[in-house]
Amino acid sequence: MNIKCRVCIPIGHNMNSSPLKIETVDRYEAALELIESAARSALTYFNEQDSLVKESKVAPMDVVSQADREVESALRQQLKAIFPDDSVIGEEGGISPGQSDYTWVIDPIDGTLPFVSGLPHWCIAIALMEAETTVAAVTLAPVSGQHYAAARGAGFWVNHHLQPAITNRPLVGNMTAIGASPWADPSVLGHCIQSVLEAGSLHYRNGSGALMLAEVAAGHLAGYYEPHMKAWDCLGGLLMVEEAGGVIAPIDNKQLMSDGHEVLAATPAAFTPLETIIKSAIQTQS
Amino acid sequence: MNIKCRVCIPIGHNMNSSPLKIETVDRYEAALELIESAARSALTYFNEQDSLVKESKVAPMDVVSQADREVESALRQQLKAIFPDDSVIGEEGGISPGQSDYTWVIDPIDGTLPFVSGLPHWCIAIALMEAETTVAAVTLAPVSGQHYAAARGAGFWVNHHLQPAITNRPLVGNMTAIGASPWADPSVLGHCIQSVLEAGSLHYRNGSGALMLAEVAAGHLAGYYEPHMKAWDCLGGLLMVEEAGGVIAPIDNKQLMSDGHEVLAATPAAFTPLETIIKSAIQTQS
Repeated sequence: MNIKCRVCIPIGHNMNSSPLKIETVDRYEAALELIESAARSALTYFNEQDSLVKESKVAPMDVVSQADREVESALRQQLKAIFPDDSVIGEEGGISPGQSDYTWVIDPIDGTLPFVSGLPHWCIAIALMEAETTVAAVTLAPVSGQHYAAARGAGFWVNHHLQPAITNRPLVGNMTAIGASPWADPSVLGHCIQSVLEAGSLHYRNGSGALMLAEVAAGHLAGYYEPHMKAWDCLGGLLMVEEAGGVIAPIDNKQLMSDGHEVLAATPAAFTPLETIIKSAIQTQS
Repeated sequence: MNIKCRVCIPIGHNMNSSPLKIETVDRYEAALELIESAARSALTYFNEQDSLVKESKVAPMDVVSQADREVESALRQQLKAIFPDDSVIGEEGGISPGQSDYTWVIDPIDGTLPFVSGLPHWCIAIALMEAETTVAAVTLAPVSGQHYAAARGAGFWVNHHLQPAITNRPLVGNMTAIGASPWADPSVLGHCIQSVLEAGSLHYRNGSGALMLAEVAAGHLAGYYEPHMKAWDCLGGLLMVEEAGGVIAPIDNKQLMSDGHEVLAATPAAFTPLETIIKSAIQTQS
Protein backbone atom coordinates (compact mmCIF):
# COMPACT_ATOMS: atom_id res chain seq x y z
CA MET A 1 0.00 0.00 0.00
CA ASN A 2 2.75 2.42 0.90
CA ILE A 3 4.50 1.99 -2.40
CA LYS A 4 1.23 2.42 -4.25
CA CYS A 5 0.54 5.61 -2.33
CA ARG A 6 4.01 7.00 -2.91
CA VAL A 7 3.54 6.56 -6.61
CA CYS A 8 0.09 8.07 -6.83
CA ILE A 9 0.31 11.12 -4.59
CA PRO A 10 0.96 14.40 -6.33
CA ILE A 11 4.52 15.71 -6.31
CA GLY A 12 3.56 18.77 -4.27
CA HIS A 13 3.07 16.64 -1.17
CA ASN A 14 6.68 15.38 -1.10
CA MET A 15 7.36 14.47 2.51
CA ASN A 16 11.04 13.54 2.20
CA SER A 17 12.21 16.45 4.30
CA SER A 18 9.23 16.64 6.66
CA PRO A 19 9.66 16.18 10.39
CA LEU A 20 6.88 13.58 10.42
CA LYS A 21 7.35 9.93 11.35
CA ILE A 22 7.22 7.54 8.42
CA GLU A 23 4.09 5.95 9.94
CA THR A 24 2.37 9.34 9.81
CA VAL A 25 3.50 10.00 6.25
CA ASP A 26 2.12 6.61 5.21
CA ARG A 27 -1.24 7.52 6.66
CA TYR A 28 -1.27 11.01 5.14
CA GLU A 29 -0.62 9.52 1.73
CA ALA A 30 -3.36 6.95 2.23
CA ALA A 31 -5.79 9.73 3.16
CA LEU A 32 -4.88 11.65 -0.01
CA GLU A 33 -5.72 8.57 -2.03
CA LEU A 34 -8.84 7.37 -0.19
CA ILE A 35 -10.59 10.75 -0.18
CA GLU A 36 -10.77 10.64 -3.98
CA SER A 37 -13.04 7.60 -4.13
CA ALA A 38 -15.08 8.92 -1.18
CA ALA A 39 -15.61 12.15 -3.13
CA ARG A 40 -16.71 10.30 -6.27
CA SER A 41 -19.21 8.26 -4.27
CA ALA A 42 -20.67 11.32 -2.51
CA LEU A 43 -20.83 13.24 -5.79
CA THR A 44 -22.90 10.47 -7.35
CA TYR A 45 -25.50 10.87 -4.58
CA PHE A 46 -25.40 14.66 -4.96
CA ASN A 47 -25.96 14.51 -8.72
CA GLU A 48 -28.69 11.90 -8.46
CA GLN A 49 -30.55 13.29 -5.47
CA ASP A 50 -33.18 15.06 -7.57
CA SER A 51 -34.18 11.85 -9.29
CA LEU A 52 -33.87 9.83 -6.05
CA VAL A 53 -36.18 12.28 -4.29
CA LYS A 54 -38.65 12.43 -7.16
CA GLU A 55 -38.65 8.79 -8.30
CA SER A 56 -38.28 6.99 -4.99
CA LYS A 57 -40.14 9.67 -3.02
CA VAL A 58 -37.44 9.63 -0.36
CA ALA A 59 -36.84 12.82 1.59
CA PRO A 60 -33.77 14.90 0.64
CA MET A 61 -32.37 14.33 4.15
CA ASP A 62 -32.60 10.57 3.57
CA VAL A 63 -30.43 10.90 0.46
CA VAL A 64 -27.71 12.75 2.33
CA SER A 65 -28.01 10.35 5.27
CA GLN A 66 -27.51 7.43 2.94
CA ALA A 67 -24.55 9.18 1.27
CA ASP A 68 -23.12 10.01 4.72
CA ARG A 69 -23.41 6.43 5.90
CA GLU A 70 -22.06 4.82 2.74
CA VAL A 71 -19.10 7.18 2.36
CA GLU A 72 -18.14 6.80 6.02
CA SER A 73 -18.62 3.04 5.99
CA ALA A 74 -16.39 2.65 2.90
CA LEU A 75 -13.71 4.91 4.40
CA ARG A 76 -13.81 2.95 7.69
CA GLN A 77 -13.43 -0.36 5.90
CA GLN A 78 -10.56 0.90 3.75
CA LEU A 79 -8.71 2.47 6.67
CA LYS A 80 -9.20 -0.61 8.87
CA ALA A 81 -7.93 -2.82 6.03
CA ILE A 82 -4.72 -0.80 5.68
CA PHE A 83 -4.19 0.23 9.31
CA PRO A 84 -6.09 -2.39 11.36
CA ASP A 85 -4.72 -1.12 14.69
CA ASP A 86 -5.88 2.49 14.25
CA SER A 87 -9.00 3.91 15.87
CA VAL A 88 -11.64 5.50 13.66
CA ILE A 89 -14.18 8.09 14.77
CA GLY A 90 -16.85 9.19 12.35
CA GLU A 91 -19.85 11.50 12.47
CA GLU A 92 -22.20 8.68 11.57
CA GLY A 93 -20.72 5.52 13.05
CA GLY A 94 -19.16 6.62 16.33
CA ILE A 95 -15.85 5.15 17.47
CA SER A 96 -14.13 1.94 16.32
CA PRO A 97 -11.34 1.59 18.88
CA GLY A 98 -7.82 0.42 17.96
CA GLN A 99 -4.51 -0.29 19.68
CA SER A 100 -2.16 2.09 17.81
CA ASP A 101 -1.53 5.74 18.72
CA TYR A 102 -3.40 6.87 15.63
CA THR A 103 -7.03 7.93 15.40
CA TRP A 104 -8.82 8.82 12.17
CA VAL A 105 -11.56 11.42 12.50
CA ILE A 106 -13.95 11.45 9.55
CA ASP A 107 -16.76 13.69 8.39
CA PRO A 108 -18.17 11.91 5.33
CA ILE A 109 -20.21 14.96 4.26
CA ASP A 110 -19.66 18.28 6.00
CA GLY A 111 -22.26 20.75 4.80
CA THR A 112 -25.35 18.58 4.82
CA LEU A 113 -27.69 21.49 4.19
CA PRO A 114 -25.81 22.83 1.12
CA PHE A 115 -25.75 19.19 -0.12
CA VAL A 116 -29.54 18.79 0.04
CA SER A 117 -30.00 22.36 -1.21
CA GLY A 118 -28.09 21.66 -4.41
CA LEU A 119 -25.27 24.05 -3.51
CA PRO A 120 -21.60 23.14 -4.03
CA HIS A 121 -20.36 24.02 -0.52
CA TRP A 122 -19.94 20.56 1.04
CA CYS A 123 -16.89 18.38 1.49
CA ILE A 124 -15.36 15.16 2.75
CA ALA A 125 -13.04 15.83 5.70
CA ILE A 126 -10.46 13.35 7.02
CA ALA A 127 -8.18 14.20 9.94
CA LEU A 128 -5.52 12.02 11.55
CA MET A 129 -4.55 12.30 15.21
CA GLU A 130 -1.45 10.86 16.83
CA ALA A 131 -2.37 10.58 20.50
CA GLU A 132 -3.98 13.99 21.22
CA THR A 133 -2.42 15.90 18.30
CA THR A 134 -3.82 16.34 14.80
CA VAL A 135 -0.92 15.48 12.48
CA ALA A 136 -2.53 15.35 9.03
CA ALA A 137 -5.74 16.36 7.29
CA VAL A 138 -7.37 16.29 3.87
CA THR A 139 -10.56 18.10 2.85
CA LEU A 140 -12.06 17.78 -0.62
CA ALA A 141 -15.07 19.64 -2.06
CA PRO A 142 -16.15 17.35 -4.91
CA VAL A 143 -18.32 19.82 -6.90
CA SER A 144 -15.65 22.50 -7.27
CA GLY A 145 -12.74 20.07 -6.99
CA GLN A 146 -11.12 22.26 -4.30
CA HIS A 147 -8.61 20.10 -2.43
CA TYR A 148 -6.99 21.16 0.83
CA ALA A 149 -4.38 19.18 2.77
CA ALA A 150 -1.99 19.72 5.66
CA ALA A 151 0.61 17.73 7.57
CA ARG A 152 1.98 19.03 10.87
CA GLY A 153 5.32 20.76 10.42
CA ALA A 154 5.29 20.06 6.69
CA GLY A 155 2.87 22.66 5.33
CA PHE A 156 -0.51 23.34 3.77
CA TRP A 157 -1.47 22.45 0.20
CA VAL A 158 -4.26 23.81 -2.01
CA ASN A 159 -5.00 21.66 -5.05
CA HIS A 160 -1.69 19.86 -4.37
CA HIS A 161 0.37 23.05 -4.43
CA LEU A 162 2.33 23.81 -1.27
CA GLN A 163 1.19 27.25 -0.08
CA PRO A 164 3.41 30.15 0.89
CA ALA A 165 2.61 32.14 4.05
CA ILE A 166 -1.09 32.92 4.56
CA THR A 167 -2.51 36.06 2.93
CA ASN A 168 -2.56 38.22 6.03
CA ARG A 169 -6.02 39.74 5.57
CA PRO A 170 -7.04 42.19 8.31
CA LEU A 171 -10.59 42.14 9.65
CA VAL A 172 -11.42 45.51 8.06
CA GLY A 173 -12.35 45.29 4.39
CA ASN A 174 -12.44 41.49 4.23
CA MET A 175 -14.99 38.73 4.88
CA THR A 176 -15.26 36.92 8.21
CA ALA A 177 -17.18 33.67 8.42
CA ILE A 178 -19.53 33.05 11.32
CA GLY A 179 -20.71 29.46 11.53
CA ALA A 180 -23.99 28.28 13.02
CA SER A 181 -25.61 25.09 14.18
CA PRO A 182 -28.56 24.06 16.33
CA TRP A 183 -26.13 24.05 19.30
CA ALA A 184 -25.36 27.77 19.01
CA ASP A 185 -27.36 30.55 20.70
CA PRO A 186 -28.97 32.69 17.93
CA SER A 187 -28.60 35.79 20.07
CA VAL A 188 -24.85 35.26 20.46
CA LEU A 189 -24.49 34.66 16.72
CA GLY A 190 -26.55 37.76 15.87
CA HIS A 191 -24.38 39.90 18.13
CA CYS A 192 -21.16 38.39 16.76
CA ILE A 193 -22.24 39.24 13.22
CA GLN A 194 -23.31 42.75 14.27
CA SER A 195 -19.87 43.24 15.84
CA VAL A 196 -18.05 41.89 12.78
CA LEU A 197 -19.99 44.34 10.59
CA GLU A 198 -19.36 47.24 12.97
CA ALA A 199 -15.64 46.41 12.82
CA GLY A 200 -15.72 46.97 9.04
CA SER A 201 -15.73 43.32 7.99
CA LEU A 202 -18.55 41.52 6.14
CA HIS A 203 -20.11 38.28 7.32
CA TYR A 204 -19.83 35.10 5.27
CA ARG A 205 -21.27 31.60 5.65
CA ASN A 206 -21.48 28.88 3.03
CA GLY A 207 -22.80 26.09 5.26
CA SER A 208 -19.68 23.91 5.65
CA GLY A 209 -17.47 24.64 8.66
CA ALA A 210 -14.67 22.34 7.45
CA LEU A 211 -14.62 24.17 4.12
CA MET A 212 -14.69 27.65 5.67
CA LEU A 213 -11.75 26.80 7.96
CA ALA A 214 -9.84 25.62 4.87
CA GLU A 215 -10.80 28.90 3.16
CA VAL A 216 -9.27 30.84 6.07
CA ALA A 217 -6.07 28.79 5.65
CA ALA A 218 -6.14 29.39 1.90
CA GLY A 219 -6.21 33.15 2.46
CA HIS A 220 -9.75 33.85 1.27
CA LEU A 221 -11.23 34.97 4.60
CA ALA A 222 -10.01 37.06 7.54
CA GLY A 223 -11.26 34.51 10.04
CA TYR A 224 -13.82 32.00 11.23
CA TYR A 225 -15.84 31.75 14.44
CA GLU A 226 -18.37 29.17 15.52
CA PRO A 227 -19.61 28.78 19.11
CA HIS A 228 -19.74 24.97 19.01
CA MET A 229 -18.17 22.56 16.53
CA LYS A 230 -17.79 18.80 16.61
CA ALA A 231 -14.30 17.27 16.26
CA TRP A 232 -14.92 15.93 12.74
CA ASP A 233 -16.02 19.39 11.54
CA CYS A 234 -12.94 21.29 12.70
CA LEU A 235 -9.84 19.19 13.48
CA GLY A 236 -8.51 19.17 9.93
CA GLY A 237 -9.33 22.81 9.24
CA LEU A 238 -7.62 23.93 12.44
CA LEU A 239 -4.42 22.11 11.44
CA MET A 240 -4.66 23.74 8.00
CA VAL A 241 -4.91 27.23 9.52
CA GLU A 242 -1.91 26.52 11.77
CA GLU A 243 0.18 25.09 8.94
CA ALA A 244 -0.73 28.04 6.69
CA GLY A 245 0.58 30.46 9.33
CA GLY A 246 -2.75 31.52 10.81
CA VAL A 247 -3.73 31.65 14.47
CA ILE A 248 -6.22 29.47 16.35
CA ALA A 249 -7.67 29.90 19.83
CA PRO A 250 -6.64 27.17 22.30
CA ILE A 251 -8.74 23.99 22.18
CA ASP A 252 -9.40 21.63 25.07
CA ASN A 253 -9.05 18.44 23.06
CA LYS A 254 -10.78 16.29 25.67
CA GLN A 255 -13.84 18.52 25.55
CA LEU A 256 -13.74 18.72 21.75
CA MET A 257 -13.60 14.93 21.38
CA SER A 258 -16.30 14.20 23.96
CA ASP A 259 -18.79 16.97 23.21
CA GLY A 260 -17.59 19.79 20.96
CA HIS A 261 -15.83 23.12 21.31
CA GLU A 262 -15.87 26.81 20.44
CA VAL A 263 -13.65 27.47 17.41
CA LEU A 264 -11.87 30.70 16.49
CA ALA A 265 -9.30 30.81 13.69
CA ALA A 266 -7.95 33.78 11.78
CA THR A 267 -5.07 35.39 9.99
CA PRO A 268 -2.37 36.85 12.27
CA ALA A 269 -3.67 40.36 11.50
CA ALA A 270 -7.32 39.54 12.21
CA PHE A 271 -7.03 37.16 15.17
CA THR A 272 -6.82 39.57 18.12
CA PRO A 273 -9.44 42.05 16.84
CA LEU A 274 -11.79 39.17 16.06
CA GLU A 275 -11.19 37.51 19.44
CA THR A 276 -11.90 40.82 21.19
CA ILE A 277 -15.19 41.51 19.44
CA ILE A 278 -16.39 37.91 19.79
CA LYS A 279 -15.67 37.91 23.54
CA SER A 280 -17.45 41.23 23.89
CA ALA A 281 -20.46 40.00 21.89
CA ILE A 282 -20.70 36.88 24.06
CA GLN A 283 -20.44 38.90 27.29
CA THR A 284 -23.24 41.19 26.11
CA GLN A 285 -25.48 38.12 25.89
CA SER A 286 -24.51 36.38 29.12
CA MET B 1 -27.42 40.59 -35.54
CA ASN B 2 -30.81 39.08 -34.84
CA ILE B 3 -30.22 36.12 -37.11
CA LYS B 4 -26.81 35.57 -35.57
CA CYS B 5 -28.33 35.60 -32.09
CA ARG B 6 -31.15 33.28 -33.07
CA VAL B 7 -28.65 30.76 -34.30
CA CYS B 8 -26.30 30.94 -31.33
CA ILE B 9 -28.67 30.93 -28.38
CA PRO B 10 -29.19 27.58 -26.70
CA ILE B 11 -32.37 25.74 -27.61
CA GLY B 12 -33.70 25.99 -24.05
CA HIS B 13 -34.31 29.69 -24.45
CA ASN B 14 -36.73 29.25 -27.34
CA MET B 15 -38.92 32.33 -27.35
CA ASN B 16 -41.30 31.39 -30.16
CA SER B 17 -44.29 31.10 -27.88
CA SER B 18 -43.35 33.80 -25.38
CA PRO B 19 -45.55 36.80 -24.79
CA LEU B 20 -42.56 39.12 -25.31
CA LYS B 21 -42.26 41.66 -28.11
CA ILE B 22 -39.81 40.72 -30.83
CA GLU B 23 -37.70 43.76 -29.88
CA THR B 24 -37.38 42.38 -26.34
CA VAL B 25 -36.54 38.89 -27.55
CA ASP B 26 -33.80 40.35 -29.77
CA ARG B 27 -32.29 42.08 -26.76
CA TYR B 28 -32.57 39.01 -24.51
CA GLU B 29 -30.74 36.96 -27.10
CA ALA B 30 -28.06 39.62 -27.44
CA ALA B 31 -27.56 39.64 -23.66
CA LEU B 32 -27.17 35.83 -23.65
CA GLU B 33 -24.43 36.21 -26.22
CA LEU B 34 -22.63 39.28 -24.89
CA ILE B 35 -22.38 38.03 -21.30
CA GLU B 36 -20.12 35.19 -22.45
CA SER B 37 -17.30 37.46 -23.64
CA ALA B 38 -17.76 39.71 -20.59
CA ALA B 39 -17.32 36.62 -18.37
CA ARG B 40 -14.17 35.54 -20.20
CA SER B 41 -12.66 39.00 -19.79
CA ALA B 42 -13.49 39.19 -16.07
CA LEU B 43 -12.20 35.66 -15.50
CA THR B 44 -8.85 36.61 -17.02
CA TYR B 45 -8.48 39.39 -14.44
CA PHE B 46 -9.56 37.02 -11.65
CA ASN B 47 -7.04 34.36 -12.63
CA GLU B 48 -4.22 36.86 -13.09
CA GLN B 49 -4.88 39.03 -10.06
CA ASP B 50 -2.26 37.31 -7.91
CA SER B 51 0.50 38.04 -10.40
CA LEU B 52 -0.86 41.53 -11.13
CA VAL B 53 -0.86 42.36 -7.42
CA LYS B 54 2.58 40.84 -6.83
CA GLU B 55 4.38 41.91 -9.99
CA SER B 56 2.90 45.34 -10.58
CA LYS B 57 2.36 46.03 -6.88
CA VAL B 58 -1.15 47.23 -7.55
CA ALA B 59 -3.72 46.84 -4.80
CA PRO B 60 -6.25 44.00 -5.17
CA MET B 61 -9.06 46.58 -5.29
CA ASP B 62 -7.33 48.23 -8.27
CA VAL B 63 -7.43 44.92 -10.15
CA VAL B 64 -11.14 44.50 -9.62
CA SER B 65 -11.73 48.16 -10.41
CA GLN B 66 -9.91 47.75 -13.69
CA ALA B 67 -11.85 44.56 -14.44
CA ASP B 68 -15.10 46.32 -13.51
CA ARG B 69 -14.37 49.27 -15.78
CA GLU B 70 -13.17 47.23 -18.75
CA VAL B 71 -16.01 44.70 -18.64
CA GLU B 72 -18.63 47.45 -18.33
CA SER B 73 -17.03 49.59 -21.01
CA ALA B 74 -16.94 46.66 -23.47
CA LEU B 75 -20.57 45.77 -22.72
CA ARG B 76 -21.65 49.39 -23.16
CA GLN B 77 -19.90 49.66 -26.51
CA GLN B 78 -21.35 46.38 -27.77
CA LEU B 79 -24.89 47.22 -26.65
CA LYS B 80 -24.72 50.73 -28.10
CA ALA B 81 -23.41 49.31 -31.40
CA ILE B 82 -26.36 46.90 -31.69
CA PHE B 83 -29.08 49.00 -30.03
CA PRO B 84 -27.90 52.62 -30.38
CA ASP B 85 -31.18 54.09 -29.12
CA ASP B 86 -31.21 52.17 -25.81
CA SER B 87 -30.14 53.71 -22.50
CA VAL B 88 -27.40 51.99 -20.52
CA ILE B 89 -26.89 52.28 -16.76
CA GLY B 90 -23.84 50.66 -15.20
CA GLU B 91 -22.36 50.50 -11.72
CA GLU B 92 -19.14 52.08 -12.91
CA GLY B 93 -20.05 54.45 -15.73
CA GLY B 94 -23.41 55.91 -14.71
CA ILE B 95 -26.12 56.51 -17.31
CA SER B 96 -25.78 56.77 -21.08
CA PRO B 97 -29.22 58.04 -22.10
CA GLY B 98 -31.05 56.82 -25.20
CA GLN B 99 -34.33 57.46 -27.03
CA SER B 100 -35.90 53.98 -27.04
CA ASP B 101 -38.08 52.52 -24.26
CA TYR B 102 -35.29 50.10 -23.31
CA THR B 103 -32.70 50.54 -20.58
CA TRP B 104 -29.85 48.13 -19.91
CA VAL B 105 -28.74 47.87 -16.28
CA ILE B 106 -25.30 46.32 -15.89
CA ASP B 107 -23.21 45.14 -12.97
CA PRO B 108 -19.89 44.17 -14.54
CA ILE B 109 -18.71 42.35 -11.39
CA ASP B 110 -21.16 41.75 -8.56
CA GLY B 111 -19.29 40.33 -5.56
CA THR B 112 -16.19 42.51 -5.59
CA LEU B 113 -14.99 41.20 -2.22
CA PRO B 114 -15.20 37.49 -3.17
CA PHE B 115 -13.41 38.45 -6.41
CA VAL B 116 -10.43 40.02 -4.62
CA SER B 117 -10.53 37.28 -1.97
CA GLY B 118 -10.05 34.55 -4.54
CA LEU B 119 -13.49 33.05 -3.95
CA PRO B 120 -15.77 31.95 -6.82
CA HIS B 121 -18.92 33.81 -5.71
CA TRP B 122 -18.98 36.73 -8.16
CA CYS B 123 -20.86 37.27 -11.38
CA ILE B 124 -21.71 39.48 -14.33
CA ALA B 125 -25.32 40.67 -14.16
CA ILE B 126 -27.23 42.19 -17.08
CA ALA B 127 -30.87 43.29 -16.77
CA LEU B 128 -33.09 44.83 -19.41
CA MET B 129 -35.93 47.23 -18.59
CA GLU B 130 -38.76 48.26 -20.88
CA ALA B 131 -39.96 51.57 -19.45
CA GLU B 132 -40.20 50.80 -15.70
CA THR B 133 -40.43 47.01 -15.98
CA THR B 134 -37.58 44.50 -15.97
CA VAL B 135 -38.26 42.23 -18.94
CA ALA B 136 -35.11 40.12 -19.23
CA ALA B 137 -32.00 39.27 -17.23
CA VAL B 138 -28.86 37.18 -17.47
CA THR B 139 -26.41 36.44 -14.63
CA LEU B 140 -23.26 34.39 -15.14
CA ALA B 141 -20.74 33.25 -12.50
CA PRO B 142 -17.62 32.61 -14.58
CA VAL B 143 -15.66 30.44 -12.10
CA SER B 144 -18.39 27.84 -11.56
CA GLY B 145 -20.00 28.42 -14.96
CA GLN B 146 -23.43 28.81 -13.29
CA HIS B 147 -25.68 30.61 -15.78
CA TYR B 148 -29.07 32.05 -14.82
CA ALA B 149 -31.50 33.79 -17.18
CA ALA B 150 -35.09 34.97 -17.17
CA ALA B 151 -37.50 36.66 -19.54
CA ARG B 152 -40.78 38.11 -18.26
CA GLY B 153 -43.67 35.75 -18.86
CA ALA B 154 -41.39 33.22 -20.56
CA GLY B 155 -39.63 31.57 -17.63
CA PHE B 156 -36.38 31.08 -15.75
CA TRP B 157 -33.40 29.09 -17.03
CA VAL B 158 -30.48 27.55 -15.15
CA ASN B 159 -27.55 26.58 -17.36
CA HIS B 160 -29.89 27.00 -20.35
CA HIS B 161 -32.48 24.56 -19.00
CA LEU B 162 -35.97 25.96 -18.49
CA GLN B 163 -36.85 25.42 -14.83
CA PRO B 164 -40.04 23.89 -13.48
CA ALA B 165 -41.78 25.52 -10.51
CA ILE B 166 -39.46 26.71 -7.73
CA THR B 167 -38.49 24.21 -5.02
CA ASN B 168 -40.83 25.49 -2.34
CA ARG B 169 -38.40 25.43 0.60
CA PRO B 170 -39.90 26.58 3.90
CA LEU B 171 -37.87 28.80 6.20
CA VAL B 172 -37.46 26.03 8.78
CA GLY B 173 -34.65 23.61 7.98
CA ASN B 174 -33.26 25.55 5.02
CA MET B 175 -30.77 28.35 4.47
CA THR B 176 -31.80 32.00 4.23
CA ALA B 177 -29.36 34.54 2.82
CA ILE B 178 -28.95 37.89 4.53
CA GLY B 179 -26.98 40.36 2.45
CA ALA B 180 -24.88 43.21 3.77
CA SER B 181 -23.23 46.37 2.54
CA PRO B 182 -21.78 49.55 4.00
CA TRP B 183 -25.28 51.08 3.61
CA ALA B 184 -26.92 48.62 5.99
CA ASP B 185 -27.19 49.07 9.76
CA PRO B 186 -25.13 46.29 11.45
CA SER B 187 -27.59 46.17 14.34
CA VAL B 188 -30.54 45.54 11.99
CA LEU B 189 -28.58 42.83 10.16
CA GLY B 190 -27.52 41.17 13.44
CA HIS B 191 -31.12 41.08 14.63
CA CYS B 192 -32.39 39.79 11.27
CA ILE B 193 -29.89 36.91 11.43
CA GLN B 194 -30.77 36.19 15.06
CA SER B 195 -34.45 36.04 14.06
CA VAL B 196 -33.74 33.81 11.06
CA LEU B 197 -31.85 31.40 13.34
CA GLU B 198 -34.57 31.49 15.99
CA ALA B 199 -37.09 30.62 13.27
CA GLY B 200 -35.15 27.40 12.58
CA SER B 201 -33.38 28.55 9.41
CA LEU B 202 -29.61 28.98 8.98
CA HIS B 203 -28.00 32.15 7.67
CA TYR B 204 -26.06 32.19 4.40
CA ARG B 205 -24.04 34.84 2.58
CA ASN B 206 -21.56 34.33 -0.22
CA GLY B 207 -20.83 38.00 -0.99
CA SER B 208 -22.77 38.44 -4.24
CA GLY B 209 -26.35 39.68 -3.96
CA ALA B 210 -27.11 39.07 -7.65
CA LEU B 211 -25.93 35.47 -7.30
CA MET B 212 -27.86 34.84 -4.07
CA LEU B 213 -31.10 36.10 -5.62
CA ALA B 214 -30.49 33.73 -8.55
CA GLU B 215 -29.89 30.95 -5.99
CA VAL B 216 -33.29 31.66 -4.42
CA ALA B 217 -34.87 31.41 -7.89
CA ALA B 218 -32.95 28.18 -8.55
CA GLY B 219 -34.44 26.63 -5.40
CA HIS B 220 -31.26 26.46 -3.29
CA LEU B 221 -32.30 28.94 -0.59
CA ALA B 222 -35.52 29.71 1.28
CA GLY B 223 -35.09 33.43 0.76
CA TYR B 224 -32.97 36.55 0.57
CA TYR B 225 -33.07 39.81 2.46
CA GLU B 226 -30.86 42.87 2.17
CA PRO B 227 -31.75 46.27 3.65
CA HIS B 228 -30.36 48.27 0.74
CA MET B 229 -29.45 47.15 -2.77
CA LYS B 230 -28.57 49.10 -5.88
CA ALA B 231 -30.57 48.54 -9.09
CA TRP B 232 -27.73 46.72 -10.89
CA ASP B 233 -27.36 44.27 -7.96
CA CYS B 234 -30.97 43.16 -7.80
CA LEU B 235 -33.12 43.89 -10.88
CA GLY B 236 -32.18 40.71 -12.72
CA GLY B 237 -32.37 38.47 -9.64
CA LEU B 238 -35.80 39.82 -8.73
CA LEU B 239 -37.13 38.96 -12.20
CA MET B 240 -35.60 35.49 -11.86
CA VAL B 241 -37.36 34.89 -8.53
CA GLU B 242 -40.69 36.03 -10.03
CA GLU B 243 -40.29 33.92 -13.16
CA ALA B 244 -39.32 30.89 -11.06
CA GLY B 245 -42.54 31.22 -9.06
CA GLY B 246 -41.11 32.88 -5.97
CA VAL B 247 -42.42 35.97 -4.21
CA ILE B 248 -40.81 39.40 -3.96
CA ALA B 249 -41.71 42.36 -1.74
CA PRO B 250 -43.00 45.42 -3.68
CA ILE B 251 -40.28 47.69 -5.04
CA ASP B 252 -40.58 51.45 -5.63
CA ASN B 253 -38.72 51.49 -8.93
CA LYS B 254 -38.11 55.23 -8.84
CA GLN B 255 -36.40 54.94 -5.47
CA LEU B 256 -34.47 51.85 -6.55
CA MET B 257 -33.14 53.55 -9.68
CA SER B 258 -32.22 56.80 -7.99
CA ASP B 259 -30.80 55.54 -4.72
CA GLY B 260 -31.41 51.90 -3.85
CA HIS B 261 -34.05 49.80 -2.12
CA GLU B 262 -34.72 47.16 0.50
CA VAL B 263 -35.00 43.73 -1.13
CA LEU B 264 -36.91 40.70 0.12
CA ALA B 265 -37.41 37.63 -2.06
CA ALA B 266 -38.36 34.10 -1.07
CA THR B 267 -40.14 30.90 -1.96
CA PRO B 268 -43.94 31.01 -1.57
CA ALA B 269 -43.65 28.95 1.64
CA ALA B 270 -40.94 31.13 3.20
CA PHE B 271 -42.02 34.62 2.12
CA THR B 272 -44.57 35.55 4.78
CA PRO B 273 -42.67 34.07 7.76
CA LEU B 274 -39.49 35.77 6.55
CA GLU B 275 -41.24 39.10 5.98
CA THR B 276 -42.74 38.91 9.48
CA ILE B 277 -39.47 38.25 11.28
CA ILE B 278 -37.56 40.84 9.24
CA LYS B 279 -40.18 43.52 10.01
CA SER B 280 -40.05 42.60 13.68
CA ALA B 281 -36.22 42.68 13.74
CA ILE B 282 -36.24 46.13 12.10
CA GLN B 283 -38.85 47.46 14.52
CA THR B 284 -36.79 46.23 17.48
CA GLN B 285 -33.95 48.45 16.25
CA SER B 286 -35.89 51.56 15.34
